[in-house]
Amino acid sequence: MKTEFLYGIHPVEEALAAGRRIFREVFVVAGHSSKRLSIMASVAMSKNIPVRRVTTTQLNRIVGDIAHQGTAARVGPYPLVELTAVLAQASGSDPSRLLVLLDTIVDPQNLGAIIRTALGVGVEGVVIPRDRAAGPTPAVSKASAGALEHVRLVQVTNLSATIRTLQSHGWWVYGMDRSAELSVFGVDLTGSLAMVIGGEEKGIRPLVKQSCDLLVSIPQRGPVGSLNASVAAAVTLYEVYRQRSGFAKTATGVQHRRAATSTHQKGRVQ
Amino acid sequence: MKTEFLYGIHPVEEALAAGRRIFREVFVVAGHSSKRLSIMASVAMSKNIPVRRVTTTQLNRIVGDIAHQGTAARVGPYPLVELTAVLAQASGSDPSRLLVLLDTIVDPQNLGAIIRTALGVGVEGVVIPRDRAAGPTPAVSKASAGALEHVRLVQVTNLSATIRTLQSHGWWVYGMDRSAELSVFGVDLTGSLAMVIGGEEKGIRPLVKQSCDLLVSIPQRGPVGSLNASVAAAVTLYEVYRQRSGFAKTATGVQHRRAATSTHQKGRVQ
Repeated sequence: MKTEFLYGIHPVEEALAAGRRIFREVFVVAGHSSKRLSIMASVAMSKNIPVRRVTTTQLNRIVGDIAHQGTAARVGPYPLVELTAVLAQASGSDPSRLLVLLDTIVDPQNLGAIIRTALGVGVEGVVIPRDRAAGPTPAVSKASAGALEHVRLVQVTNLSATIRTLQSHGWWVYGMDRSAELSVFGVDLTGSLAMVIGGEEKGIRPLVKQSCDLLVSIPQRGPVGSLNASVAAAVTLYEVYRQRSGFAKTATGVQHRRAATSTHQKGRVQ
Repeated sequence: MKTEFLYGIHPVEEALAAGRRIFREVFVVAGHSSKRLSIMASVAMSKNIPVRRVTTTQLNRIVGDIAHQGTAARVGPYPLVELTAVLAQASGSDPSRLLVLLDTIVDPQNLGAIIRTALGVGVEGVVIPRDRAAGPTPAVSKASAGALEHVRLVQVTNLSATIRTLQSHGWWVYGMDRSAELSVFGVDLTGSLAMVIGGEEKGIRPLVKQSCDLLVSIPQRGPVGSLNASVAAAVTLYEVYRQRSGFAKTATGVQHRRAATSTHQKGRVQ
Protein backbone atom coordinates (compact mmCIF):
# COMPACT_ATOMS: atom_id res chain seq x y z
CA MET A 1 0.00 0.00 0.00
CA LYS A 2 1.19 3.49 -0.89
CA THR A 3 1.71 5.61 2.18
CA GLU A 4 2.22 9.32 2.77
CA PHE A 5 3.30 11.48 5.68
CA LEU A 6 0.78 13.62 7.48
CA TYR A 7 2.48 16.30 9.60
CA GLY A 8 1.38 18.78 12.23
CA ILE A 9 -0.67 18.29 15.38
CA HIS A 10 -4.13 18.90 13.88
CA PRO A 11 -3.82 16.59 10.87
CA VAL A 12 -2.48 13.68 12.94
CA GLU A 13 -5.00 14.27 15.77
CA GLU A 14 -7.97 14.54 13.41
CA ALA A 15 -6.93 11.58 11.26
CA LEU A 16 -6.75 9.50 14.46
CA ALA A 17 -10.15 10.79 15.56
CA ALA A 18 -11.81 10.31 12.16
CA GLY A 19 -10.56 6.72 11.90
CA ARG A 20 -10.65 6.74 8.10
CA ARG A 21 -6.91 6.34 7.37
CA ILE A 22 -4.77 3.28 7.86
CA PHE A 23 -1.95 4.25 10.25
CA ARG A 24 1.49 2.63 9.82
CA GLU A 25 3.31 4.62 12.51
CA VAL A 26 3.17 7.88 14.41
CA PHE A 27 6.30 9.98 15.00
CA VAL A 28 6.67 12.22 18.03
CA VAL A 29 9.78 14.21 18.89
CA ALA A 30 11.45 12.96 22.07
CA GLY A 31 11.64 15.27 25.06
CA HIS A 32 8.72 17.49 24.10
CA SER A 33 6.59 19.03 26.86
CA SER A 34 3.34 19.23 24.91
CA LYS A 35 0.27 17.78 26.60
CA ARG A 36 -1.44 17.45 23.22
CA LEU A 37 1.45 15.42 21.82
CA SER A 38 1.33 13.14 24.88
CA ILE A 39 -2.41 12.59 24.54
CA MET A 40 -1.98 11.94 20.81
CA ALA A 41 0.69 9.33 21.48
CA SER A 42 -1.59 7.62 24.03
CA VAL A 43 -4.48 7.57 21.57
CA ALA A 44 -2.23 6.06 18.89
CA MET A 45 -0.94 3.38 21.26
CA SER A 46 -4.48 2.53 22.37
CA LYS A 47 -5.20 1.79 18.69
CA ASN A 48 -2.08 -0.42 18.46
CA ILE A 49 -0.30 2.05 16.21
CA PRO A 50 3.50 2.06 16.69
CA VAL A 51 4.69 5.36 18.15
CA ARG A 52 8.33 6.25 17.30
CA ARG A 53 10.28 8.74 19.40
CA VAL A 54 12.54 10.74 17.10
CA THR A 55 14.75 13.80 17.26
CA THR A 56 13.71 16.99 15.49
CA THR A 57 16.54 16.41 13.02
CA GLN A 58 15.21 12.94 12.26
CA LEU A 59 11.66 14.28 11.83
CA ASN A 60 12.94 17.01 9.51
CA ARG A 61 14.61 14.29 7.47
CA ILE A 62 11.34 12.31 7.29
CA VAL A 63 8.84 15.06 6.39
CA GLY A 64 11.12 17.92 5.38
CA ASP A 65 11.92 21.16 7.16
CA ILE A 66 8.29 22.22 7.44
CA ALA A 67 5.97 23.22 10.29
CA HIS A 68 5.51 19.69 11.64
CA GLN A 69 5.03 20.86 15.24
CA GLY A 70 6.89 17.81 16.51
CA THR A 71 4.71 15.12 15.00
CA ALA A 72 4.00 13.21 11.81
CA ALA A 73 2.31 9.98 10.80
CA ARG A 74 2.86 7.52 7.98
CA VAL A 75 -0.64 6.74 6.76
CA GLY A 76 -2.53 5.18 3.87
CA PRO A 77 -3.96 7.21 0.98
CA TYR A 78 -6.58 9.85 1.56
CA PRO A 79 -10.05 8.21 1.71
CA LEU A 80 -11.88 9.78 -1.24
CA VAL A 81 -15.64 9.30 -1.47
CA GLU A 82 -17.79 8.66 -4.56
CA LEU A 83 -20.42 11.20 -5.58
CA THR A 84 -23.07 8.47 -5.65
CA ALA A 85 -22.33 7.70 -1.98
CA VAL A 86 -22.71 11.36 -1.05
CA LEU A 87 -26.00 11.62 -2.95
CA ALA A 88 -27.32 8.41 -1.41
CA GLN A 89 -26.45 9.55 2.10
CA ALA A 90 -27.88 13.04 1.60
CA SER A 91 -31.52 12.00 1.70
CA GLY A 92 -33.98 13.92 -0.44
CA SER A 93 -36.18 15.11 2.38
CA ASP A 94 -33.42 16.85 4.35
CA PRO A 95 -33.88 20.57 3.69
CA SER A 96 -30.30 21.41 4.63
CA ARG A 97 -28.41 19.55 1.94
CA LEU A 98 -25.37 21.50 0.81
CA LEU A 99 -22.50 20.59 -1.47
CA VAL A 100 -19.45 22.68 -2.34
CA LEU A 101 -17.96 22.38 -5.83
CA LEU A 102 -14.52 23.90 -6.27
CA ASP A 103 -13.24 24.85 -9.70
CA THR A 104 -9.56 25.69 -10.39
CA ILE A 105 -8.51 26.12 -6.77
CA VAL A 106 -4.78 25.43 -7.12
CA ASP A 107 -3.41 26.85 -3.86
CA PRO A 108 -3.27 24.19 -1.09
CA GLN A 109 -3.71 26.93 1.54
CA ASN A 110 -6.95 28.09 -0.08
CA LEU A 111 -8.23 24.54 -0.54
CA GLY A 112 -7.46 23.74 3.10
CA ALA A 113 -9.12 26.91 4.38
CA ILE A 114 -12.26 26.27 2.30
CA ILE A 115 -12.52 22.66 3.50
CA ARG A 116 -12.19 23.84 7.11
CA THR A 117 -15.03 26.32 6.65
CA ALA A 118 -17.14 23.80 4.70
CA LEU A 119 -16.87 21.29 7.54
CA GLY A 120 -17.79 24.05 10.00
CA VAL A 121 -21.10 24.77 8.24
CA GLY A 122 -21.87 21.06 7.91
CA VAL A 123 -21.70 20.41 4.17
CA GLU A 124 -22.58 16.97 2.79
CA GLY A 125 -19.39 16.95 0.76
CA VAL A 126 -16.81 18.87 -1.23
CA VAL A 127 -16.26 18.12 -4.93
CA ILE A 128 -12.99 18.98 -6.68
CA PRO A 129 -11.71 18.31 -10.22
CA ARG A 130 -9.00 15.69 -10.65
CA ASP A 131 -6.86 17.86 -12.97
CA ARG A 132 -5.47 21.38 -12.72
CA ALA A 133 -6.52 21.71 -9.08
CA ALA A 134 -5.02 21.14 -5.65
CA GLY A 135 -5.71 17.63 -4.33
CA PRO A 136 -6.03 16.14 -0.83
CA THR A 137 -2.34 16.30 0.09
CA PRO A 138 -0.82 16.42 3.59
CA ALA A 139 -0.22 20.17 3.01
CA VAL A 140 -3.96 20.62 2.48
CA SER A 141 -4.72 18.60 5.61
CA LYS A 142 -2.40 20.95 7.51
CA ALA A 143 -3.97 24.07 5.98
CA SER A 144 -7.43 22.73 6.88
CA ALA A 145 -6.42 22.21 10.55
CA GLY A 146 -7.23 18.54 10.01
CA ALA A 147 -10.74 19.17 8.63
CA LEU A 148 -9.73 17.29 5.48
CA GLU A 149 -9.58 14.10 7.57
CA HIS A 150 -13.31 14.39 8.37
CA VAL A 151 -14.89 15.96 5.30
CA ARG A 152 -16.34 13.85 2.50
CA LEU A 153 -14.25 14.76 -0.55
CA VAL A 154 -15.15 13.73 -4.09
CA GLN A 155 -12.74 13.97 -7.02
CA VAL A 156 -14.33 14.12 -10.49
CA THR A 157 -12.96 14.29 -14.02
CA ASN A 158 -15.59 16.64 -15.39
CA LEU A 159 -17.21 19.24 -13.15
CA SER A 160 -19.83 20.23 -15.75
CA ALA A 161 -20.99 16.61 -16.01
CA THR A 162 -21.19 16.46 -12.20
CA ILE A 163 -23.35 19.60 -12.21
CA ARG A 164 -25.74 18.03 -14.70
CA THR A 165 -25.91 14.88 -12.57
CA LEU A 166 -26.75 16.95 -9.50
CA GLN A 167 -29.41 18.92 -11.41
CA SER A 168 -31.04 15.69 -12.63
CA HIS A 169 -31.21 14.61 -8.96
CA GLY A 170 -33.09 17.79 -8.04
CA TRP A 171 -30.19 19.89 -6.76
CA TRP A 172 -29.86 23.59 -7.49
CA VAL A 173 -26.39 24.64 -8.62
CA TYR A 174 -25.33 28.25 -8.00
CA GLY A 175 -22.00 29.68 -9.14
CA MET A 176 -20.10 32.50 -7.44
CA ASP A 177 -19.18 35.05 -10.09
CA ARG A 178 -17.88 38.49 -9.25
CA SER A 179 -19.62 40.05 -12.27
CA ALA A 180 -23.04 38.57 -11.45
CA GLU A 181 -25.74 41.14 -10.80
CA LEU A 182 -27.58 39.13 -8.15
CA SER A 183 -26.12 39.36 -4.64
CA VAL A 184 -25.62 36.16 -2.66
CA PHE A 185 -27.50 37.96 0.14
CA GLY A 186 -30.53 38.44 -2.09
CA VAL A 187 -31.21 34.89 -3.30
CA ASP A 188 -32.85 31.87 -1.71
CA LEU A 189 -30.13 29.48 -0.53
CA THR A 190 -32.36 26.85 1.09
CA GLY A 191 -33.11 23.41 -0.32
CA SER A 192 -30.68 21.02 -1.96
CA LEU A 193 -27.98 23.33 -3.14
CA ALA A 194 -24.50 23.00 -4.64
CA MET A 195 -22.38 26.17 -4.48
CA VAL A 196 -19.64 26.42 -7.12
CA ILE A 197 -16.60 28.47 -6.12
CA GLY A 198 -13.83 29.34 -8.57
CA GLY A 199 -10.16 30.11 -8.24
CA GLU A 200 -8.90 33.50 -7.20
CA GLU A 201 -7.41 34.62 -10.51
CA LYS A 202 -10.00 33.69 -13.09
CA GLY A 203 -13.02 32.43 -11.15
CA ILE A 204 -15.19 29.62 -12.50
CA ARG A 205 -14.33 28.38 -16.03
CA PRO A 206 -16.85 29.46 -18.73
CA LEU A 207 -18.22 25.97 -19.46
CA VAL A 208 -18.74 25.27 -15.76
CA LYS A 209 -20.35 28.67 -15.34
CA GLN A 210 -22.81 27.93 -18.15
CA SER A 211 -23.91 24.75 -16.38
CA CYS A 212 -24.98 26.65 -13.26
CA ASP A 213 -28.64 27.47 -12.64
CA LEU A 214 -27.80 30.91 -11.30
CA LEU A 215 -24.75 33.14 -10.84
CA VAL A 216 -24.42 35.28 -7.74
CA SER A 217 -21.81 37.70 -6.43
CA ILE A 218 -20.55 39.04 -3.13
CA PRO A 219 -21.07 42.81 -3.04
CA GLN A 220 -17.93 44.88 -2.62
CA ARG A 221 -17.06 48.52 -2.17
CA GLY A 222 -13.85 50.41 -2.60
CA PRO A 223 -10.92 50.38 -4.97
CA VAL A 224 -9.49 46.88 -4.47
CA GLY A 225 -11.54 44.28 -6.34
CA SER A 226 -12.07 40.58 -5.67
CA LEU A 227 -11.86 38.75 -2.37
CA ASN A 228 -9.47 35.96 -1.51
CA ALA A 229 -11.00 32.64 -2.61
CA SER A 230 -11.21 31.25 0.92
CA VAL A 231 -12.79 34.48 2.17
CA ALA A 232 -15.37 34.43 -0.64
CA ALA A 233 -16.16 30.81 0.16
CA ALA A 234 -16.61 31.58 3.86
CA VAL A 235 -18.95 34.52 3.24
CA THR A 236 -21.00 32.40 0.83
CA LEU A 237 -21.21 29.24 2.94
CA TYR A 238 -22.12 31.15 6.08
CA GLU A 239 -24.90 33.00 4.23
CA VAL A 240 -26.28 29.56 3.29
CA TYR A 241 -25.96 28.55 6.94
CA ARG A 242 -27.66 31.74 8.15
CA GLN A 243 -30.62 31.40 5.78
CA ARG A 244 -31.17 27.83 6.99
CA SER A 245 -30.87 28.69 10.67
CA GLY A 246 -33.56 30.19 12.87
CA PHE A 247 -32.07 33.67 12.51
CA ALA A 248 -33.57 34.20 9.06
CA LYS A 249 -37.14 33.60 10.29
CA THR A 250 -37.97 37.02 11.76
CA ALA A 251 -38.25 40.31 9.93
CA THR A 252 -34.79 41.57 10.83
CA GLY A 253 -33.42 38.20 11.86
CA VAL A 254 -31.90 39.76 14.95
CA GLN A 255 -32.75 40.37 18.56
CA HIS A 256 -33.42 43.89 19.67
CA ARG A 257 -30.13 45.34 20.83
CA ARG A 258 -31.33 46.75 24.18
CA ALA A 259 -32.71 43.37 25.20
CA ALA A 260 -29.62 41.52 24.09
CA THR A 261 -27.14 43.82 25.74
CA SER A 262 -28.97 44.82 28.92
CA THR A 263 -26.95 42.47 31.11
CA HIS A 264 -23.69 43.50 29.47
CA GLN A 265 -23.96 47.22 29.99
CA LYS A 266 -21.37 48.59 32.37
CA GLY A 267 -22.85 52.00 33.07
CA ARG A 268 -21.49 53.34 29.81
CA VAL A 269 -22.30 56.87 28.77
CA GLN A 270 -25.07 57.00 26.15
CA MET B 1 13.07 60.39 5.55
CA LYS B 2 13.01 56.70 6.29
CA THR B 3 11.96 54.67 3.27
CA GLU B 4 10.83 51.08 2.72
CA PHE B 5 10.32 48.82 -0.27
CA LEU B 6 6.82 47.92 -1.38
CA TYR B 7 6.84 44.90 -3.70
CA GLY B 8 4.32 43.17 -5.93
CA ILE B 9 1.98 44.58 -8.56
CA HIS B 10 -1.05 45.27 -6.32
CA PRO B 11 0.81 47.13 -3.54
CA VAL B 12 2.69 49.40 -5.98
CA GLU B 13 -0.41 49.97 -8.14
CA GLU B 14 -2.66 50.75 -5.19
CA ALA B 15 -0.10 52.96 -3.44
CA LEU B 16 0.17 54.99 -6.65
CA ALA B 17 -3.64 55.16 -6.94
CA ALA B 18 -4.17 56.08 -3.28
CA GLY B 19 -1.60 58.88 -3.45
CA ARG B 20 -0.85 58.72 0.27
CA ARG B 21 2.80 57.59 0.14
CA ILE B 22 5.81 59.62 -0.93
CA PHE B 23 7.41 57.73 -3.85
CA ARG B 24 11.20 57.89 -4.26
CA GLU B 25 11.48 55.48 -7.18
CA VAL B 26 9.66 52.63 -8.88
CA PHE B 27 11.52 49.51 -10.07
CA VAL B 28 10.32 47.47 -13.02
CA VAL B 29 12.14 44.46 -14.48
CA ALA B 30 13.40 45.14 -17.99
CA GLY B 31 12.01 43.07 -20.84
CA HIS B 32 8.73 42.12 -19.16
CA SER B 33 5.62 41.66 -21.31
CA SER B 34 3.06 42.64 -18.68
CA LYS B 35 0.52 45.25 -19.71
CA ARG B 36 -0.14 46.05 -16.05
CA LEU B 37 3.54 46.74 -15.40
CA SER B 38 3.66 49.01 -18.46
CA ILE B 39 0.61 50.97 -17.32
CA MET B 40 2.05 51.20 -13.81
CA ALA B 41 5.32 52.61 -15.17
CA SER B 42 3.37 55.19 -17.21
CA VAL B 43 1.36 56.22 -14.17
CA ALA B 44 4.54 56.61 -12.12
CA MET B 45 6.22 58.71 -14.83
CA SER B 46 3.13 60.91 -15.15
CA LYS B 47 3.58 61.68 -11.45
CA ASN B 48 7.27 62.50 -12.02
CA ILE B 49 8.42 59.43 -10.10
CA PRO B 50 11.70 57.98 -11.42
CA VAL B 51 11.17 54.52 -12.98
CA ARG B 52 14.27 52.28 -12.91
CA ARG B 53 14.58 49.34 -15.30
CA VAL B 54 16.34 46.51 -13.45
CA THR B 55 17.10 42.84 -13.99
CA THR B 56 15.31 40.22 -11.90
CA THR B 57 18.63 39.53 -10.14
CA GLN B 58 18.95 43.22 -9.24
CA LEU B 59 15.35 43.33 -8.00
CA ASN B 60 15.94 40.20 -5.91
CA ARG B 61 18.95 41.97 -4.40
CA ILE B 62 16.83 45.05 -3.57
CA VAL B 63 13.72 43.44 -2.03
CA GLY B 64 14.88 39.88 -1.43
CA ASP B 65 13.96 36.67 -3.21
CA ILE B 66 10.22 37.10 -2.66
CA ALA B 67 7.13 37.21 -4.86
CA HIS B 68 7.77 40.72 -6.23
CA GLN B 69 6.10 39.99 -9.59
CA GLY B 70 8.67 42.15 -11.36
CA THR B 71 8.11 45.39 -9.51
CA ALA B 72 8.91 47.27 -6.33
CA ALA B 73 8.89 50.84 -5.10
CA ARG B 74 10.96 52.76 -2.59
CA VAL B 75 8.39 54.77 -0.63
CA GLY B 76 7.97 56.80 2.53
CA PRO B 77 6.54 55.32 5.74
CA TYR B 78 3.02 53.95 5.86
CA PRO B 79 0.53 56.80 6.43
CA LEU B 80 -1.06 55.93 9.76
CA VAL B 81 -4.18 57.81 10.80
CA GLU B 82 -5.17 59.09 14.26
CA LEU B 83 -8.29 57.73 15.95
CA THR B 84 -9.58 61.27 16.48
CA ALA B 85 -9.42 61.86 12.72
CA VAL B 86 -11.40 58.69 12.04
CA LEU B 87 -14.00 59.64 14.65
CA ALA B 88 -14.29 63.19 13.31
CA GLN B 89 -14.74 61.97 9.73
CA ALA B 90 -17.26 59.28 10.70
CA SER B 91 -20.11 61.68 11.41
CA GLY B 92 -22.62 60.74 14.11
CA SER B 93 -25.66 60.67 11.87
CA ASP B 94 -24.31 58.08 9.41
CA PRO B 95 -26.02 54.79 10.30
CA SER B 96 -23.35 52.69 8.60
CA ARG B 97 -20.34 53.52 10.74
CA LEU B 98 -18.15 50.49 11.25
CA LEU B 99 -14.72 50.10 12.79
CA VAL B 100 -12.62 46.94 13.06
CA LEU B 101 -10.41 46.48 16.11
CA LEU B 102 -7.82 43.72 15.84
CA ASP B 103 -6.29 42.18 18.96
CA THR B 104 -3.19 39.95 18.84
CA ILE B 105 -3.21 39.32 15.08
CA VAL B 106 0.47 38.47 14.57
CA ASP B 107 0.42 36.80 11.15
CA PRO B 108 0.99 39.32 8.31
CA GLN B 109 -1.05 37.09 5.97
CA ASN B 110 -4.05 37.22 8.30
CA LEU B 111 -3.71 40.97 8.88
CA GLY B 112 -3.52 41.56 5.13
CA ALA B 113 -6.53 39.37 4.39
CA ILE B 114 -8.62 41.07 7.09
CA ILE B 115 -7.71 44.55 5.82
CA ARG B 116 -8.66 43.51 2.27
CA THR B 117 -12.08 42.31 3.47
CA ALA B 118 -12.56 45.35 5.72
CA LEU B 119 -11.95 47.70 2.78
CA GLY B 120 -14.41 45.63 0.71
CA VAL B 121 -17.26 46.18 3.18
CA GLY B 122 -16.41 49.88 3.54
CA VAL B 123 -15.18 50.23 7.12
CA GLU B 124 -14.32 53.66 8.49
CA GLY B 125 -11.02 52.34 9.77
CA VAL B 126 -9.02 49.48 11.23
CA VAL B 127 -7.43 49.76 14.68
CA ILE B 128 -4.43 47.62 15.70
CA PRO B 129 -2.27 47.56 18.83
CA ARG B 130 1.29 48.90 18.53
CA ASP B 131 2.85 45.97 20.41
CA ARG B 132 2.66 42.19 20.01
CA ALA B 133 0.79 42.48 16.71
CA ALA B 134 1.61 42.59 13.00
CA GLY B 135 2.08 46.15 11.74
CA PRO B 136 1.59 47.83 8.34
CA THR B 137 4.63 46.30 6.62
CA PRO B 138 5.17 45.77 2.88
CA ALA B 139 4.39 42.05 3.47
CA VAL B 140 0.96 43.06 4.83
CA SER B 141 0.39 45.38 1.88
CA LYS B 142 1.13 42.40 -0.40
CA ALA B 143 -1.16 40.06 1.57
CA SER B 144 -3.93 42.67 1.40
CA ALA B 145 -3.63 42.94 -2.42
CA GLY B 146 -2.80 46.62 -1.85
CA ALA B 147 -5.90 47.33 0.27
CA LEU B 148 -3.55 48.50 3.06
CA GLU B 149 -2.64 51.49 0.86
CA HIS B 150 -6.27 52.71 0.91
CA VAL B 151 -7.62 51.72 4.33
CA ARG B 152 -7.48 54.08 7.28
CA LEU B 153 -5.27 52.30 9.81
CA VAL B 154 -4.90 53.42 13.42
CA GLN B 155 -2.18 52.11 15.76
CA VAL B 156 -2.91 52.44 19.48
CA THR B 157 -0.96 51.58 22.62
CA ASN B 158 -3.94 50.38 24.65
CA LEU B 159 -6.88 48.72 22.92
CA SER B 160 -9.04 48.71 26.10
CA ALA B 161 -8.60 52.48 26.44
CA THR B 162 -9.58 52.87 22.78
CA ILE B 163 -12.72 50.82 23.40
CA ARG B 164 -13.69 53.08 26.30
CA THR B 165 -13.09 56.15 24.11
CA LEU B 166 -15.33 54.72 21.41
CA GLN B 167 -18.04 53.86 23.94
CA SER B 168 -17.97 57.40 25.35
CA HIS B 169 -18.51 58.64 21.78
CA GLY B 170 -21.64 56.49 21.44
CA TRP B 171 -20.16 53.50 19.64
CA TRP B 172 -21.14 49.91 20.42
CA VAL B 173 -18.22 47.56 20.80
CA TYR B 174 -18.81 43.86 20.11
CA GLY B 175 -16.14 41.20 20.56
CA MET B 176 -15.91 37.96 18.60
CA ASP B 177 -15.51 35.12 21.09
CA ARG B 178 -15.88 31.48 20.14
CA SER B 179 -17.38 30.60 23.53
CA ALA B 180 -20.04 33.33 23.43
CA GLU B 181 -23.62 32.04 23.50
CA LEU B 182 -25.05 34.74 21.22
CA SER B 183 -24.61 34.14 17.51
CA VAL B 184 -23.33 36.97 15.32
CA PHE B 185 -26.33 36.18 13.08
CA GLY B 186 -28.73 36.82 15.95
CA VAL B 187 -27.69 40.27 17.13
CA ASP B 188 -28.32 43.76 15.81
CA LEU B 189 -25.22 44.96 13.96
CA THR B 190 -26.55 48.32 12.77
CA GLY B 191 -25.56 51.72 14.14
CA SER B 192 -22.08 52.88 15.11
CA LEU B 193 -20.31 49.64 15.75
CA ALA B 194 -16.75 48.50 16.42
CA MET B 195 -16.13 44.80 15.95
CA VAL B 196 -13.20 43.35 17.92
CA ILE B 197 -11.50 40.33 16.35
CA GLY B 198 -8.83 38.36 18.17
CA GLY B 199 -5.92 36.22 17.06
CA GLU B 200 -6.36 32.65 15.93
CA GLU B 201 -4.72 30.91 18.85
CA LYS B 202 -6.11 32.65 21.90
CA GLY B 203 -8.73 35.07 20.62
CA ILE B 204 -9.29 38.43 22.31
CA ARG B 205 -7.25 39.06 25.49
CA PRO B 206 -9.32 38.93 28.73
CA LEU B 207 -9.03 42.64 29.59
CA VAL B 208 -10.03 43.66 26.08
CA LYS B 209 -12.90 41.18 26.19
CA GLN B 210 -14.19 42.68 29.44
CA SER B 211 -14.32 46.11 27.82
CA CYS B 212 -16.70 44.93 25.10
CA ASP B 213 -20.45 45.64 25.33
CA LEU B 214 -21.33 42.20 24.00
CA LEU B 215 -19.57 39.01 22.97
CA VAL B 216 -20.79 37.06 19.97
CA SER B 217 -19.71 33.89 18.22
CA ILE B 218 -19.84 32.31 14.78
CA PRO B 219 -21.81 29.06 14.99
CA GLN B 220 -19.90 25.95 13.98
CA ARG B 221 -20.64 22.29 13.54
CA GLY B 222 -18.41 19.30 13.35
CA PRO B 223 -15.27 18.09 15.01
CA VAL B 224 -12.72 20.75 14.04
CA GLY B 225 -13.13 23.86 16.17
CA SER B 226 -12.29 27.50 15.47
CA LEU B 227 -12.13 29.23 12.12
CA ASN B 228 -9.10 30.89 10.61
CA ALA B 229 -8.91 34.51 11.87
CA SER B 230 -9.33 36.03 8.41
CA VAL B 231 -12.28 33.73 7.69
CA ALA B 232 -13.95 34.65 11.00
CA ALA B 233 -13.41 38.32 10.23
CA ALA B 234 -14.94 37.96 6.76
CA VAL B 235 -18.05 36.15 8.03
CA THR B 236 -18.52 38.79 10.73
CA LEU B 237 -17.92 41.86 8.57
CA TYR B 238 -20.19 40.60 5.79
CA GLU B 239 -22.98 39.91 8.29
CA VAL B 240 -22.66 43.55 9.36
CA TYR B 241 -22.79 44.53 5.70
CA ARG B 242 -25.83 42.33 5.05
CA GLN B 243 -27.80 43.69 7.98
CA ARG B 244 -27.17 47.25 6.77
CA SER B 245 -28.07 46.50 3.17
CA GLY B 246 -31.54 46.28 1.67
CA PHE B 247 -31.50 42.48 1.86
CA ALA B 248 -32.27 42.43 5.58
CA LYS B 249 -35.48 44.44 5.16
CA THR B 250 -37.88 41.71 4.01
CA ALA B 251 -39.05 38.69 5.94
CA THR B 252 -36.65 36.24 4.36
CA GLY B 253 -34.35 38.84 2.89
CA VAL B 254 -34.26 36.91 -0.35
CA GLN B 255 -36.06 36.83 -3.67
CA HIS B 256 -38.26 33.91 -4.43
CA ARG B 257 -36.16 31.30 -6.21
CA ARG B 258 -38.53 30.65 -9.13
CA ALA B 259 -38.65 34.33 -9.98
CA ALA B 260 -34.93 34.76 -9.65
CA THR B 261 -33.97 31.72 -11.67
CA SER B 262 -36.71 31.61 -14.30
CA THR B 263 -34.48 33.09 -16.99
CA HIS B 264 -31.61 30.81 -16.08
CA GLN B 265 -33.40 27.51 -16.33
CA LYS B 266 -32.18 25.38 -19.17
CA GLY B 267 -34.95 22.85 -19.38
CA ARG B 268 -33.57 20.95 -16.41
CA VAL B 269 -35.43 17.98 -15.06
CA GLN B 270 -37.37 18.80 -11.90
